[in-house]
Amino acid sequence: MKHALPVTREADFAAWYQSVITEADMAEESGVRGCMVIRPWGYGIWERFQRLLDDRIKATGHENCYFPVFIPLSYFEQEASHVEGFAKEMAVVTHHRLIADGKGGLVPDPAAKLEEPLVVRPTSETVIGHAFARWVQSWRDLPVLINQWANVVRWEMRTRMFLRTAEFLWQEGHTAHATADEAREETLKMLEVYRDFAENCVAVPVIAGEKPENERFPGAVGTWSIEAMMQDGKALQAGTSHFLGTNFAKAQNIRFQNAEGQLEHAQTTSWGVSTRMIGALIMVHGDDDGLRVPPRVAPWQVVIVPMLRDTPEDEALVSYCRELQQALAAESAFGEPVRALLDLKPVKATNKRWGWIKKGAPLVIEVGGRDMAAGNISVIRRDHLYREDGKLDSAAVARDGFAGGVAALLEDIQQTLFDQAKKRLDANITPAGDWAQVEAHFAKGAKNPGWLEVQWSRPTGAGLDAVVERLKALKLTLRNAPMGQAATDGACIFTGDAAVERVLVGRAY
Amino acid sequence: MKHALPVTREADFAAWYQSVITEADMAEESGVRGCMVIRPWGYGIWERFQRLLDDRIKATGHENCYFPVFIPLSYFEQEASHVEGFAKEMAVVTHHRLIADGKGGLVPDPAAKLEEPLVVRPTSETVIGHAFARWVQSWRDLPVLINQWANVVRWEMRTRMFLRTAEFLWQEGHTAHATADEAREETLKMLEVYRDFAENCVAVPVIAGEKPENERFPGAVGTWSIEAMMQDGKALQAGTSHFLGTNFAKAQNIRFQNAEGQLEHAQTTSWGVSTRMIGALIMVHGDDDGLRVPPRVAPWQVVIVPMLRDTPEDEALVSYCRELQQALAAESAFGEPVRALLDLKPVKATNKRWGWIKKGAPLVIEVGGRDMAAGNISVIRRDHLYREDGKLDSAAVARDGFAGGVAALLEDIQQTLFDQAKKRLDANITPAGDWAQVEAHFAKGAKNPGWLEVQWSRPTGAGLDAVVERLKALKLTLRNAPMGQAATDGACIFTGDAAVERVLVGRAY
Repeated sequence: MKHALPVTREADFAAWYQSVITEADMAEESGVRGCMVIRPWGYGIWERFQRLLDDRIKATGHENCYFPVFIPLSYFEQEASHVEGFAKEMAVVTHHRLIADGKGGLVPDPAAKLEEPLVVRPTSETVIGHAFARWVQSWRDLPVLINQWANVVRWEMRTRMFLRTAEFLWQEGHTAHATADEAREETLKMLEVYRDFAENCVAVPVIAGEKPENERFPGAVGTWSIEAMMQDGKALQAGTSHFLGTNFAKAQNIRFQNAEGQLEHAQTTSWGVSTRMIGALIMVHGDDDGLRVPPRVAPWQVVIVPMLRDTPEDEALVSYCRELQQALAAESAFGEPVRALLDLKPVKATNKRWGWIKKGAPLVIEVGGRDMAAGNISVIRRDHLYREDGKLDSAAVARDGFAGGVAALLEDIQQTLFDQAKKRLDANITPAGDWAQVEAHFAKGAKNPGWLEVQWSRPTGAGLDAVVERLKALKLTLRNAPMGQAATDGACIFTGDAAVERVLVGRAY
Repeated sequence: MKHALPVTREADFAAWYQSVITEADMAEESGVRGCMVIRPWGYGIWERFQRLLDDRIKATGHENCYFPVFIPLSYFEQEASHVEGFAKEMAVVTHHRLIADGKGGLVPDPAAKLEEPLVVRPTSETVIGHAFARWVQSWRDLPVLINQWANVVRWEMRTRMFLRTAEFLWQEGHTAHATADEAREETLKMLEVYRDFAENCVAVPVIAGEKPENERFPGAVGTWSIEAMMQDGKALQAGTSHFLGTNFAKAQNIRFQNAEGQLEHAQTTSWGVSTRMIGALIMVHGDDDGLRVPPRVAPWQVVIVPMLRDTPEDEALVSYCRELQQALAAESAFGEPVRALLDLKPVKATNKRWGWIKKGAPLVIEVGGRDMAAGNISVIRRDHLYREDGKLDSAAVARDGFAGGVAALLEDIQQTLFDQAKKRLDANITPAGDWAQVEAHFAKGAKNPGWLEVQWSRPTGAGLDAVVERLKALKLTLRNAPMGQAATDGACIFTGDAAVERVLVGRAY
């Protein structure tokens, strides 16, 4: 069977991923090393993410702020483990002016060298911590609950669109609390916000759990993540939430007078979701015909393509379609007005059809003269593109009355995409009782080896290093220890000691 | 009469401006040179700007994208007049890694010097132009209508919060068209979007017009602006729209095949509004008690402050207030749900009252036990804070039924703020028939000298330079030539030649 993309998932998953991004006009190389241009369809999805996640961040009591893109070098020198984790990959501003080089070009002006270099933020704990130190004096000032939508830069050597780019977009929440319990509660509350957002908005089922010590954010006491499974079985960490204890508060002097009049360090947290989530969306929902966008996060949920023929009949056809577009826009789905586009661009109708299929618009409606004459429209559901005989599944239905059912239709598509992904996730997490099983499982060379759930004794230090090395030899990593897991009932597959926890193991992006 | 701010507009306008920002918790110094921290109340106003302006940008057919924060040096070398305008004040990234300096500190790693330095974008014409060159091949690809919300950096020597900061936030629209007429039409369409947004959302009346040649954007064929008048009579350029002709298209090779099969350069435009608009809001609407935020852009339109006394009665009082908050939130004003906050922070009620007055929440509602017993609430309108006897104008009204009238009340406050500012703008633009009048007018030392409207022959080159120098001696600048102005009927006040245009002259931020 022929498909719209030049390469299938089966043939070459990495090439398929890139072709979805290109064919769906989501993003492209920018000419600037490691940075991408996010095009309207890709950015439109990000805007939907922003709106839905921002609503949830505000509903849980957080307010948005904005902090400088530049961080003085000295701020990084204060938290030792933090700088160790980030110092190797940052963009450094050293000059504030360019001058002519006398050969028709420009060079940094030696006279305009900064006394202290500035780092383009890789994350904002340090600069926000300095603000918290000013804002927090008394227990009455706590909690501080803030969030920022921003661009950040980490100088990556090997980049991949949406998954790993030098510059990316994200939100980063930062909070300060009077007690460790309250800060831990916040950390887990935001993890749950991320799980809800991933599953109920992006239709990406995830496993929420705590990362092992070696995978913690630099400077954190504990890091939790939501892990999503891509169609090649690899894990993608789609959001993280960190309990920072007093590590940053001590480095940045965030102190408050408690109700008893004593000075204490605040307990802080941070948590983030980035444009990486778009990579998850592609690799969870895409198929060999392109992207499939869950209706809740689709910039356009319904696209109407009139089959124009440059004849006087076109006018009536456009009116017929516009009435439908208006009827759709008057409806609500998921508590918001339905987003319906009437595509009148000067492009051939079949090219438009395949363009929107590749972009993954949930519903594509084609309307020709014959449809109009019969009072019909032809509806393609992106989550069910082909009939059993391999032909495009385009169903003629009456135009009038279609709008009334569109919310249910969109909700059904949203649920179908989630159910497909959930079924795959559940089917591909397998328990493994010993190390031999782990080796055998990943030696099989399955297209989707999925993840293994193993029991372990949660070693630390050198013991953990040894575990990490053994896994690395199989290109595996520890993902997380799922929340609400069953009690352990065996031995650690690494050490043979009594197991204290179940942890997921898999390949990862 | 005593006021809430430590300094009045009359006593020291510049100090007053800064005190509004501090006392209203809008922004603060960040510890990073020239960069500010935008706090929740300031950022909340920016989010309102974003929502309202973004809706208008999309309604006029534009889509949002995202382009890299870094621009290779070579991109700047291509458009000569553009680089001349910007090259002197840019942040330059020269290294991509830090290493330990052996003394416990960090330094840029000499081994990680970039081959080509990267500039942190001061504006994105060059990098977006490169994308347009890839996207535009045929007349069918035109127009390209895109917009970006982003942070930009211009290395300013003297900074001032919101008005002139090294980093600021803005939207920048960029479009490409097949014809100059269409591009000019786009330039003026977006100018009108800005005028509508400034006047109808921010309640800031503006004069829309064309900037004289010396005030054009570097590389533009024509620049239009909206100019707002601050309470000290200075002008603030609150938005600009540029017709770039083929200047950037030629530098960046944006060409298309027209319907006749010939290659042509595209005609481009760009336009932007930034966080500077928040500075305009402060200096147009603020008074000696702090900020006054027009309801349409207020993060909270109504703030309810219960007079809690740490007694068992508090519970009933909170319920009484919560019912009001819920009734308000169920109402719509300006086509959106009313934003009503119940402020339960552990702070004394009078401090809260004055805090919200300084922040400029349009309606502050205080509720004490006596109010509750009478079924009342006490309402303060921020646009009418004092009675004639100088006492706070707090009116007791029945709680039930108040929500039903809140939309009209908010609309009235919005209109009142606009009317006050409009009256001031109109009263302070005066025609001047000759140069002597200009000198005399600005020699008076009035607290608000406003602007003069003069007729001129629109000289260019050395003739224009001479005009600019004469004005500069009086600290004056040419603002813009208003749209839809009356025909000229006299001589140029600078050259004595026949006038061809009326132009505004004033001091400016």
